[in-house]
Amino acid sequence: MIEAAHGRIAPHVRRTPVLATAAGELGVRAPLTLKLELLQHTGSFKARGAFNRILSAAEWDEVPPAGLIAASGGNHGAAVAFAARRLGYPAEIFVPASSPPMKRDRITSFGATVRVVDGLYDDAQAAADVRQSATGALLIHPFDHPHVVAGQGTMARELDDQLTDGYDTLVVATGGGGFTAGQAAWVRGSRKVVSVEPETSRCLHAAREAGWPTPVPVSGLAADSLGARQIGDVAWSVVEQFVDEAVLVPDEAIRRAQRSLWQELRLVAEPGGAAALAAVQCGAYVPGADERVVVVVCGSNADPSSVAG
Amino acid sequence: MIEAAHGRIAPHVRRTPVLATAAGELGVRAPLTLKLELLQHTGSFKARGAFNRILSAAEWDEVPPAGLIAASGGNHGAAVAFAARRLGYPAEIFVPASSPPMKRDRITSFGATVRVVDGLYDDAQAAADVRQSATGALLIHPFDHPHVVAGQGTMARELDDQLTDGYDTLVVATGGGGFTAGQAAWVRGSRKVVSVEPETSRCLHAAREAGWPTPVPVSGLAADSLGARQIGDVAWSVVEQFVDEAVLVPDEAIRRAQRSLWQELRLVAEPGGAAALAAVQCGAYVPGADERVVVVVCGSNADPSSVAG
Repeated sequence: MIEAAHGRIAPHVRRTPVLATAAGELGVRAPLTLKLELLQHTGSFKARGAFNRILSAAEWDEVPPAGLIAASGGNHGAAVAFAARRLGYPAEIFVPASSPPMKRDRITSFGATVRVVDGLYDDAQAAADVRQSATGALLIHPFDHPHVVAGQGTMARELDDQLTDGYDTLVVATGGGGFTAGQAAWVRGSRKVVSVEPETSRCLHAAREAGWPTPVPVSGLAADSLGARQIGDVAWSVVEQFVDEAVLVPDEAIRRAQRSLWQELRLVAEPGGAAALAAVQCGAYVPGADERVVVVVCGSNADPSSVAG
Repeated sequence: MIEAAHGRIAPHVRRTPVLATAAGELGVRAPLTLKLELLQHTGSFKARGAFNRILSAAEWDEVPPAGLIAASGGNHGAAVAFAARRLGYPAEIFVPASSPPMKRDRITSFGATVRVVDGLYDDAQAAADVRQSATGALLIHPFDHPHVVAGQGTMARELDDQLTDGYDTLVVATGGGGFTAGQAAWVRGSRKVVSVEPETSRCLHAAREAGWPTPVPVSGLAADSLGARQIGDVAWSVVEQFVDEAVLVPDEAIRRAQRSLWQELRLVAEPGGAAALAAVQCGAYVPGADERVVVVVCGSNADPSSVAG
């Protein structure tokens, strides 16, 4: 499915660059490879899953005249709005009031209709589900759908083309699990996959402890991008098998990662986009000697003045 | 010299990524390849020339106990300060009062001594020259030295490794000419080199009109990075032969390029760093059909809030 997704979405997404950092840079003892997925269209990996979901549906004539509907902390909504405009569909996006205004503005700028809902992502999803029943629009779930997961997994496939000498470990931030599952489904144990969640939004951690998807309370700096209350069922079926380690990071580590990405690399990462690096910086994940680690910097939709402090 | 420079500086500089944009992105009809040299250490290409100049001098035991001295609109100063810290030399950097405070802060953060001089870059250079006579420190000129030019040229050498299918045209911003000369010296006519200057700081343009280096008045948005009053003699000797076209861009085009880099790519570019893209966006340079164009985005030391408007 990931191979098919790659062929389907390649004309519509960017091949995002990789950048090698030397030992000691970014406050990390080991050299790293950063996958700069924050330079993807609409500022996050979400374009991959959105295009694959929508194009797959279009192949089966499953996009109704009412178009597309989605709920999102912001990044998925922007990706759906961007894809909808490019592919010629109307789109209606539900976002929680807790999401940054810049994310809403971005969705509007792509011509989609934005509906603001009190609460967090799950509240927006509930409102979108109700509305979908009324309009019949095609619901594009932000993570819990096989085509979304397969689309996200095209990033790991792309890495194989870019790092022809291979690598050992992929460190990724986990929200609802779709992105992490996509990568894990591509590597299927051939590389180590490390999931990183904020201490305050830890649905994958909770699922691993319980043995199945379990709701958790959600808050903190990265809640607008990583704050899913429960890991998706599709994601869990993959992650359960192919994610080797799941670590947690405090908000202070995320903020520090954002600042060092700006100070040392002039990259603006949003909190969720900086979480994977935070894990390596703060020692939540400690690479072994000579371990070739790829850290995904996966989202950039932050107010740029927030990273310069 | 560029090949030697590459070997010398490779452990100290980043191999900066390239990113392909599709037709229609960034308001440009043609697909482009962006060379993201703004992700270089200290936020600009200047690290290449600074490391090559300093390491070359060190090979010949030419770095005195007084260390290094330089004048700079800011980016060269940051690069010299960064290299000095890494190589263990003291550094004193003269910057004009017109340079943005963030550039000065950056230099200080690398442990160099900063001296602020009234006026523009040339005034800072004059003050540095006087001070150099007193201290005997090694003057690291921002552009007019063969080792600086050769260091900058390692970027074009790197591009040959990255774009193995080749390319036709390299579009670069010109300040004192060192960066442009470095690229032109590497390609030596095998690719077209297009120089881009702001309308308000056009020393290469003036030299081409006059037939030799000629002083020009300097002002405008990008003056802190591109505002050299006269093209360097070393640069001119190369540029005269191997730069095919020299175009000018207005400040409005530079600002627009900065904004679109942020809006569509989430990259923070300073005005000088966005000038080359501005030329392609505003039609100062119009690529031919199927012309494979590389645009260098060469500097990122801007207040991030300045690009988000």
